[in-house]
Amino acid sequence: MTIVVVWLTGWTGTTPAQTTASDPLPSWNDGATKQAIVEFVTRVSTANSPNFVPVEDRIATFDNDGTLWAEQPLVQGLFVLKKIKAMAAADPSLQEQQPYKAVLAGDVEYFRQAGEAAVVELATITHSNITQDQFETEVRSFFDTAIYPKFNVPVTQIVYKPMRELLDYLKANNFQTWICSGGGIDFVRQISHSLYGISPQQVIGSTGKEEFIEQDGKYVIWKLPELSRINDKEGKPIGIDLHIGERPIFAVGNERSGGDIAMLTYSQQQPLSFQLLINHDDGYREFAYQEPDNVSLNAAAANGWQVVSIKNDWQTVFSFQE
Amino acid sequence: MTIVVVWLTGWTGTTPAQTTASDPLPSWNDGATKQAIVEFVTRVSTANSPNFVPVEDRIATFDNDGTLWAEQPLVQGLFVLKKIKAMAAADPSLQEQQPYKAVLAGDVEYFRQAGEAAVVELATITHSNITQDQFETEVRSFFDTAIYPKFNVPVTQIVYKPMRELLDYLKANNFQTWICSGGGIDFVRQISHSLYGISPQQVIGSTGKEEFIEQDGKYVIWKLPELSRINDKEGKPIGIDLHIGERPIFAVGNERSGGDIAMLTYSQQQPLSFQLLINHDDGYREFAYQEPDNVSLNAAAANGWQVVSIKNDWQTVFSFQE
Repeated sequence: MTIVVVWLTGWTGTTPAQTTASDPLPSWNDGATKQAIVEFVTRVSTANSPNFVPVEDRIATFDNDGTLWAEQPLVQGLFVLKKIKAMAAADPSLQEQQPYKAVLAGDVEYFRQAGEAAVVELATITHSNITQDQFETEVRSFFDTAIYPKFNVPVTQIVYKPMRELLDYLKANNFQTWICSGGGIDFVRQISHSLYGISPQQVIGSTGKEEFIEQDGKYVIWKLPELSRINDKEGKPIGIDLHIGERPIFAVGNERSGGDIAMLTYSQQQPLSFQLLINHDDGYREFAYQEPDNVSLNAAAANGWQVVSIKNDWQTVFSFQE
Repeated sequence: MTIVVVWLTGWTGTTPAQTTASDPLPSWNDGATKQAIVEFVTRVSTANSPNFVPVEDRIATFDNDGTLWAEQPLVQGLFVLKKIKAMAAADPSLQEQQPYKAVLAGDVEYFRQAGEAAVVELATITHSNITQDQFETEVRSFFDTAIYPKFNVPVTQIVYKPMRELLDYLKANNFQTWICSGGGIDFVRQISHSLYGISPQQVIGSTGKEEFIEQDGKYVIWKLPELSRINDKEGKPIGIDLHIGERPIFAVGNERSGGDIAMLTYSQQQPLSFQLLINHDDGYREFAYQEPDNVSLNAAAANGWQVVSIKNDWQTVFSFQE
C-alpha cells in the first residue's frame, strides 16, 4: 500500500492565484485597467456569484503579434527573411529572380509596389513544398538562434511580461487560454507552450493547404504552395468557430491594422464578456505606433472595450528590461 | 494559514484507473484485444517505464460513425431527412423539385444514379444559409426528439458502451481524447460532451465555408452553401494536423468504406503507437456489414492493427440491451 501525503500551505508560492492575497499581476500598475481585469475574472469564477460562468465556457482568446509579443518587425517575417537567404544561397540562380532579389537587396520599394500579393508570395514560397515535420524542424531551429533587432536579444525573450502573467492568471482561474493569430498555425505552435504555457492544440492561425501522401515509403503531411485560410480580421471569428466552436468571453488584441476588431466584436456578442485592446504608446521601452485612421481605438471607445496603455499600465514590458 | 492534507491510499476508489484492481473495461470480454489495449495504455502511462509517454503527447483520436456509435443509418442522415421534410413543408414549391422530391418519395434509385454529388448537395442545402447559432439550435432540437430505426430508441442511446468505457479509461490515464469524424464538426459538437465526455474543442469534422457578417445589427457567423474540407480518408490526417498538430499515439476506426485507413496509417508513423479497427460482425446485437473489397481489414492485417470483433470482444454493445 502506498500512502502519499501532500501538504499545501497557504503562504507558499504553490497556492492557486484566486485564493492568494499576493498580486497575480505584479507587472501591471494599479489602475483602472488592472482593476477591470481582476474584477471580471473574480466575478465569473466566484461560485454562487450571479455572474458565475461554468469552467467549460471560460474561454479566452489572444492575438499574438503585438499582443503577446513584439511585432516591430514580425517574428515570422524574420523567419521568412532567413529562409529566403538560405534558399538563395543553396540555389544561386534564385538570386537574380524576384522576390528573392528584392529580399536580398533589402529593396523595400519593390514590396511597397507589389503590395500584399508579394507578401503572400513570400510566405507561400517559404512555408510550402516541404513536409510538416521538416517545416517544424526549420522553425524550431530558427527559434534556437534568431535575434530580435533593436533589443538585440533572442526572439524568445520578446514576450510581454504582463501578458504572460495575465495568461497564467486566467489559467489559474480555469480559463482555456487560446492564441488566435494572423501568423501561421504551425509556426506559432512551436513556441506556444514554452513561451506562453499554451498547448499547440490551443493555437489558431493562418493555414496552407496540405495533402497526405506517400514519400519514400513513409506517409507524410505535405505542405502545398497555396493558402487555405487567413486568420486575420473577419477570419478570426471564423477561426474561433472552427477550432473552439464557442464565443470567447475574454478576448485580447492590439491596435495596428484593425486586425482584432472582428474578434473583439464577436466576443462581445456574449453578454457577459470582456474585451481588451493594447495601445502601443511606449516608444521608450517598446515601440510607439498608431493606426493612421485610429480604427481600433475608435472601435474600443465606441464599444466600451478596455484599452491597455503600455506606457501607463505596464510596470515592466519585457523581462530583460528588469 | 491553511493546511490541506491529502491522503491517497492504494486500495480506495480514488486511485487512478491504471493502478486499481477493478476492471476499467467491464463491457469488453477478456481476450487478446482487451489485453492489448490495457497493456499499451499501462506501458505508456507508467512512470519510469522505457515506453513512458509524457502526458502532452498522449493523444487519442476516434472516428465517430460506426466507431463510437451505430451508423446504419448515419445519424446525420436522419437529421438531413428531417430537415428536408421541414423545408418542403414550409415551402410546398420545393416538393416538386429535386432532390426534395426524391427524399420525400424515398426514391433511393435517384440518389444511386446521382451519386456522391447528390449527397453533397443534400448536406449543403441542409447545413447552410443559416447562422451558426440557429444551426446549433436545430441540431440540439433534433437530438432531443429523434428516434433511431431498428432499435426504436432515442438516437442518443446508440453509443457503443465498450467505446465509452475506453474513452473514460484513456482519460483516466491522462490521454487527450479527440473525435475525428467524417460528419460535420458543428453537428457532432452538439453531443460530444453529453455522450462521450469530450469537449467541443476536441472534435474534428467536415466543415463548410463561413463568413462573419452583420445581420439586423448583430454580428453572426453565417454558414455558406459550400464545403471547405471533407474530413474523411486522406482528409483525416490533414484534419488532425489542423486541430491537434501532432500524430495520435492511439487511433480507432472501423471498417465500412476505408474511411479510417489513412488516420490509422498516420498514427502508426509514430513508433510507439496503437491502432484499433472495429469489425461489424454482429448482425444480432448490431449490424453485420463488410466492405466488398475488405480493404480496411486487409490493411489491419498487413500493418498489425488490432481488430475488434463486436461479436466476440464486446460483452455488451448498447446500454439499452443490458
